[in-house]
Amino acid sequence: MLLRILFLSALLFSGLTQAMLVEKQRFEIAKFTTENGQLIAPVQVGWEAYGQLNEAKDNVILITHFFSGSSHAAGKYSEEDALPGYWDNIIGPGKAIDTDRFYVISVDTLVNANVFDPNVITTGPATINPATGKPWGLDFPVVTIGDFVEVQKALLDSLGIERLYAVIGASMGSFQAIEWATRYPERVERLVPVIGTAFIDAWAAVRLERWAYPIKADPAWKNGDYYATGQPTEGLITALSYIIQDAVYPTGFNLRYPAPFTDAAPHQDIRASFSAWQQLREHAAVRAAYQDANHILYLVRASQLFRAGMGDNWQAALKRVQARTLLLPATGDQLLLPQMSRTTQQALEAAGKEVHYHEIPGIWGHLDGVVGMPAVAEVLSEFLQQ
Amino acid sequence: MLLRILFLSALLFSGLTQAMLVEKQRFEIAKFTTENGQLIAPVQVGWEAYGQLNEAKDNVILITHFFSGSSHAAGKYSEEDALPGYWDNIIGPGKAIDTDRFYVISVDTLVNANVFDPNVITTGPATINPATGKPWGLDFPVVTIGDFVEVQKALLDSLGIERLYAVIGASMGSFQAIEWATRYPERVERLVPVIGTAFIDAWAAVRLERWAYPIKADPAWKNGDYYATGQPTEGLITALSYIIQDAVYPTGFNLRYPAPFTDAAPHQDIRASFSAWQQLREHAAVRAAYQDANHILYLVRASQLFRAGMGDNWQAALKRVQARTLLLPATGDQLLLPQMSRTTQQALEAAGKEVHYHEIPGIWGHLDGVVGMPAVAEVLSEFLQQ
Repeated sequence: MLLRILFLSALLFSGLTQAMLVEKQRFEIAKFTTENGQLIAPVQVGWEAYGQLNEAKDNVILITHFFSGSSHAAGKYSEEDALPGYWDNIIGPGKAIDTDRFYVISVDTLVNANVFDPNVITTGPATINPATGKPWGLDFPVVTIGDFVEVQKALLDSLGIERLYAVIGASMGSFQAIEWATRYPERVERLVPVIGTAFIDAWAAVRLERWAYPIKADPAWKNGDYYATGQPTEGLITALSYIIQDAVYPTGFNLRYPAPFTDAAPHQDIRASFSAWQQLREHAAVRAAYQDANHILYLVRASQLFRAGMGDNWQAALKRVQARTLLLPATGDQLLLPQMSRTTQQALEAAGKEVHYHEIPGIWGHLDGVVGMPAVAEVLSEFLQQ
Repeated sequence: MLLRILFLSALLFSGLTQAMLVEKQRFEIAKFTTENGQLIAPVQVGWEAYGQLNEAKDNVILITHFFSGSSHAAGKYSEEDALPGYWDNIIGPGKAIDTDRFYVISVDTLVNANVFDPNVITTGPATINPATGKPWGLDFPVVTIGDFVEVQKALLDSLGIERLYAVIGASMGSFQAIEWATRYPERVERLVPVIGTAFIDAWAAVRLERWAYPIKADPAWKNGDYYATGQPTEGLITALSYIIQDAVYPTGFNLRYPAPFTDAAPHQDIRASFSAWQQLREHAAVRAAYQDANHILYLVRASQLFRAGMGDNWQAALKRVQARTLLLPATGDQLLLPQMSRTTQQALEAAGKEVHYHEIPGIWGHLDGVVGMPAVAEVLSEFLQQ
């Protein structure tokens, strides 16, 4: 898939040395009440960690993952893995997020997209509701970024970790990081929202709805009740195609996909499609094999509902933040525009907070928040040393 | 609809004085052979003109319209019209495109989106094929920006107009303008692509495919053969919603549509939608009443296929241009990015052409190529005086 190919650059950094080997662990909450008052019993999520927790338990950095991601932020499960975790370019011994110093922990979200990936543990519409013995389907409650944070907090509490040296997350991970610093300000010392924002506006909510639409429009979706009959694959692949494209700036996209002039058939037949579209769908199909359509809908909804504090005034909510903040938007980001980080910065500054802003350069747009991180590794490293 | 509301600003400019009254005229080509070798018999298109053609017939400015537009570029059909043509803010007596001096002419394209607007005359899938007595449907040939240009050229030939003082067009209109200057370089003295590009790349072709998708996914589309059973309205409204959003920068969009926090239902029910999405669809539905789903598909395809010269090397094709060029991208354009105008500029400069580049400021993004034109009226006016 696209990410795998783009990760080749990450491989140049990580492939030359022995991989950091990591292990997936399971965390369970017997009864979890969601922000909208519904019960999920039990919640199970996967997590992994890199580095060593010190005795004072004050060297913890929480990594919160993006929409299509998982807790596999760095390292490999075995030397044979083709690729390491998505931020292996900045997490590891001697790297910007230095595992020689920090205990770095990452948790699968609720309704994780990759529910059928054997290395992901999550709870959502596609997982079994013990009360019925069947997949939850749309009986699963709408969950929020706040719910993701509560699951992470329960895990940290179970480990006796009270304070976070930093919370760092990209994209939807930035929402969780910001919600952490807003909801539990006394527990978060440093906040690094990467390709992020403190609020989803009408424009972004509608853009996200466009990811949900092809799934809902697929007759195989059956109002979410498809677990006995099979996934709405056509709709899911289309949704994932849009997600891939929206995360990539044209310069990068055009390096990867063929120009329209290379195709003759579309000039002769309105039904013929371009190779770029076909190839994008093929990449999406690889991803779709590990993902569930309802999980995508729930992640879209969790993202749409996000604003810091989850109330009606995200700027006021940011006044509670105590963390020093470093905003790292990507210059070419067309999904969560640098302008959104600027607006977040202004709100934090208006509340008298310390905020740093640094753009990630690159040709990949939103995706530079993953593959382009080496360009800001030094900025991040310095921020974490202060 | 959104455009009507945005045109209020245009009204401030035009509403205070008496409207320039204009009349729709009809042009017919008995037999038209398309670029891909198919026959359309006859082609009929509407056109209108403002100002007076001088005796030398050397004061002609051709205006080529955008995807959702028509030949109604300026003036009103009657004093009672709520709104004037879309570029009335720059076309008229004493305006940037001065009808006291120029004869300004504009032509409905083939497969015009607004085929059911009584003021639009076009030929396309929804119009009757005299050979069968039924709508063409998908038997209508795939047409290109080059075909649009050929229809315009046939009209100008019929009027004895051999040279164009300028060709000016926004968005898809810029494609036609550039194709004019590439295909008939000796006939075009000045070229003004507004919010435009000389090439559609893989990224833009896929973005455009996303406008087509909801129509094709609607069961009522029936592979284009729906004229006896009714439009794929759901798909058409969705497509038009995407078109509206893609043309508007977030700052403008968020002024028009409510923020997600104002809605309670989406937090309780995954199927509940946001007011912003609903209102956008309502605006799209107003437009859909005048538009045909197949025409949208054909316009998408014509746009996807565009590159200057319609061959495999648009940069080489631009070497044929003789016109002086003024590129007017909009700063916030996320559909045809300013970067595309920059690349077009670089190709023209590499070919030794005179090119000027000036960005349209504003909060509306792509739409600033329509509503934001007063901000560059002086630049345009000066360019046309040289």
